[in-house]
Amino acid sequence: MADPAITPAVASLAQRVRAGEARAIARAISLVEDDEPGAAALVGALFRATGGAYLVGVTGPPGAGKSTLVDRLSLQLRARDETVGIIAVDPTSPYSGGAILGDRVRMQAQAGDDGVFIRSMATRGHLGGLSRATHEAAYVLDAAGKHWVVIETVGVGQDEVDIVRTADIAIVVLVPGTGDEVQALKAGIMEIADIFVVNKSDREGADRLEASIEAMLALADAEPGAWRPPIVRTQATTGEGVPELLAAVEAFRAHTAPARHERRRVRHAFRLRELLADRFMEHVDRRVLAPGELDGLLAQIADRGLDPYTAANGILERALGRDTTR
Amino acid sequence: MADPAITPAVASLAQRVRAGEARAIARAISLVEDDEPGAAALVGALFRATGGAYLVGVTGPPGAGKSTLVDRLSLQLRARDETVGIIAVDPTSPYSGGAILGDRVRMQAQAGDDGVFIRSMATRGHLGGLSRATHEAAYVLDAAGKHWVVIETVGVGQDEVDIVRTADIAIVVLVPGTGDEVQALKAGIMEIADIFVVNKSDREGADRLEASIEAMLALADAEPGAWRPPIVRTQATTGEGVPELLAAVEAFRAHTAPARHERRRVRHAFRLRELLADRFMEHVDRRVLAPGELDGLLAQIADRGLDPYTAANGILERALGRDTTR
Repeated sequence: MADPAITPAVASLAQRVRAGEARAIARAISLVEDDEPGAAALVGALFRATGGAYLVGVTGPPGAGKSTLVDRLSLQLRARDETVGIIAVDPTSPYSGGAILGDRVRMQAQAGDDGVFIRSMATRGHLGGLSRATHEAAYVLDAAGKHWVVIETVGVGQDEVDIVRTADIAIVVLVPGTGDEVQALKAGIMEIADIFVVNKSDREGADRLEASIEAMLALADAEPGAWRPPIVRTQATTGEGVPELLAAVEAFRAHTAPARHERRRVRHAFRLRELLADRFMEHVDRRVLAPGELDGLLAQIADRGLDPYTAANGILERALGRDTTR
Repeated sequence: MADPAITPAVASLAQRVRAGEARAIARAISLVEDDEPGAAALVGALFRATGGAYLVGVTGPPGAGKSTLVDRLSLQLRARDETVGIIAVDPTSPYSGGAILGDRVRMQAQAGDDGVFIRSMATRGHLGGLSRATHEAAYVLDAAGKHWVVIETVGVGQDEVDIVRTADIAIVVLVPGTGDEVQALKAGIMEIADIFVVNKSDREGADRLEASIEAMLALADAEPGAWRPPIVRTQATTGEGVPELLAAVEAFRAHTAPARHERRRVRHAFRLRELLADRFMEHVDRRVLAPGELDGLLAQIADRGLDPYTAANGILERALGRDTTR
């Protein structure tokens, strides 16, 4: 298990993050993204300074213009002198060299502005790693005093949907004319939307897309007084509709202020379970299994001499030091 | 912890699954999908009968025509008198009524054929649940004697990508003209493809899409003798290119026969870790935390009186019954 004791280096980094230093923020996010030694201690130290930021989740299919939209939204917030941290969860291919292109394009718009911090996170790595790293990067930006933290993901995977669903607000960005409307809306994201955006709304099919969202919303049993997700039309490339989007965000924020605590509780519960499972697996790897033992078990499973359930139960019993079957 | 002891009802169900009875297969998959009592015992009992099926993962963006393509492929395999199980991982919205529409459309093509079993799985439910349920449904179909098990997912989430990556073969289906080609290819799926399919290849942009895949493949450092993912053009609606796709699958299968064991080992390792983490969390919920205790911890976290790391470490120490920090 990682030692949660804080070293002087980590304490100093935490202090610089809290002062809002961009280089310290970047270093801190790298630390949590790579799960380096000290990452847990750092987030632990920063955690008590979090809770000030409003966490905005933005999701939608690839090519919907999410990045451009988030940049536009960010410019609006900057015009109000509010600070913004952006985490772009960027599924990466080894061929494309990662998230660098995205950063560069976007930095052109907001270069030299200390009030905006943009960071891309790759989705590579072990199961659950993305969700962990993204949450922790959000803690870092929150502790650094950003007023807004925007997490932007491609919205079809369960991990990505969970990240957005547990934000303070979930914005689902759709785009007309990418073929079958039903397909585009089937991606498990309808149910999490607090606001729908029809981006590239000058394209053919925008009316049809909006009508199909309306039709789906009409089918949902809304409780009296419940928030009804508005549909905002935007053209992110020109900025059209972005003030209306921000107004919708503010309206949602005001409407849900009483319930925000509950939403954050759900987020913390997710996070606590993830952490606990991670820590347990670390413990198993380091303290329970002998070197090479896992390979032996896997070989037995591959030969069908052992099934994964029996293997898992055996390891768990040893980890807990007792019979757990009853 | 679930009792892994097998009841007579589960033993009988396992026997009927192994005999290939469609109703028993359906019941067994429901059992594992809902994680009902007896699910673990059932999969444990079936596991030793698995390993005969060739597991095909098919992924791609929504609207790429994956379902139609899989149906066509399945018809080809049936023409060779080989049996097929299809698991369509279907992100569901509460508005659309789930995966029913998809099943109906597809059943029309293959209705009444006992050699094909098609099942949609929703992506709802807790973190990691999708991956678990999908793997276990594949075990059921494998143990039922299907020659081929095809798992079809929307390919942008990490969960979905992991499912396909650990299949015996990963087929990535792309479609021309859904906007920015780079976006469509950036979704972390390039690296897992053993075969690329350009579906709807009569559409404008097919040449450009194929060229951009080629360009990306050219950048990859292929080891001598390594498999180079072919690009197969199809029109799933007419069936054009489907024989060529099956030929590519067979070529890959022959090429990688020596390495298949290793790929399956990785799959089993994934599965074992998932199971172990699940079982541990069950144990924590049932045996470690007092009723209401979790809510108290979450309230403290929400008030920033406690950070999630310290909370997780405390629970882990209690679960393991000793100090784990050193």
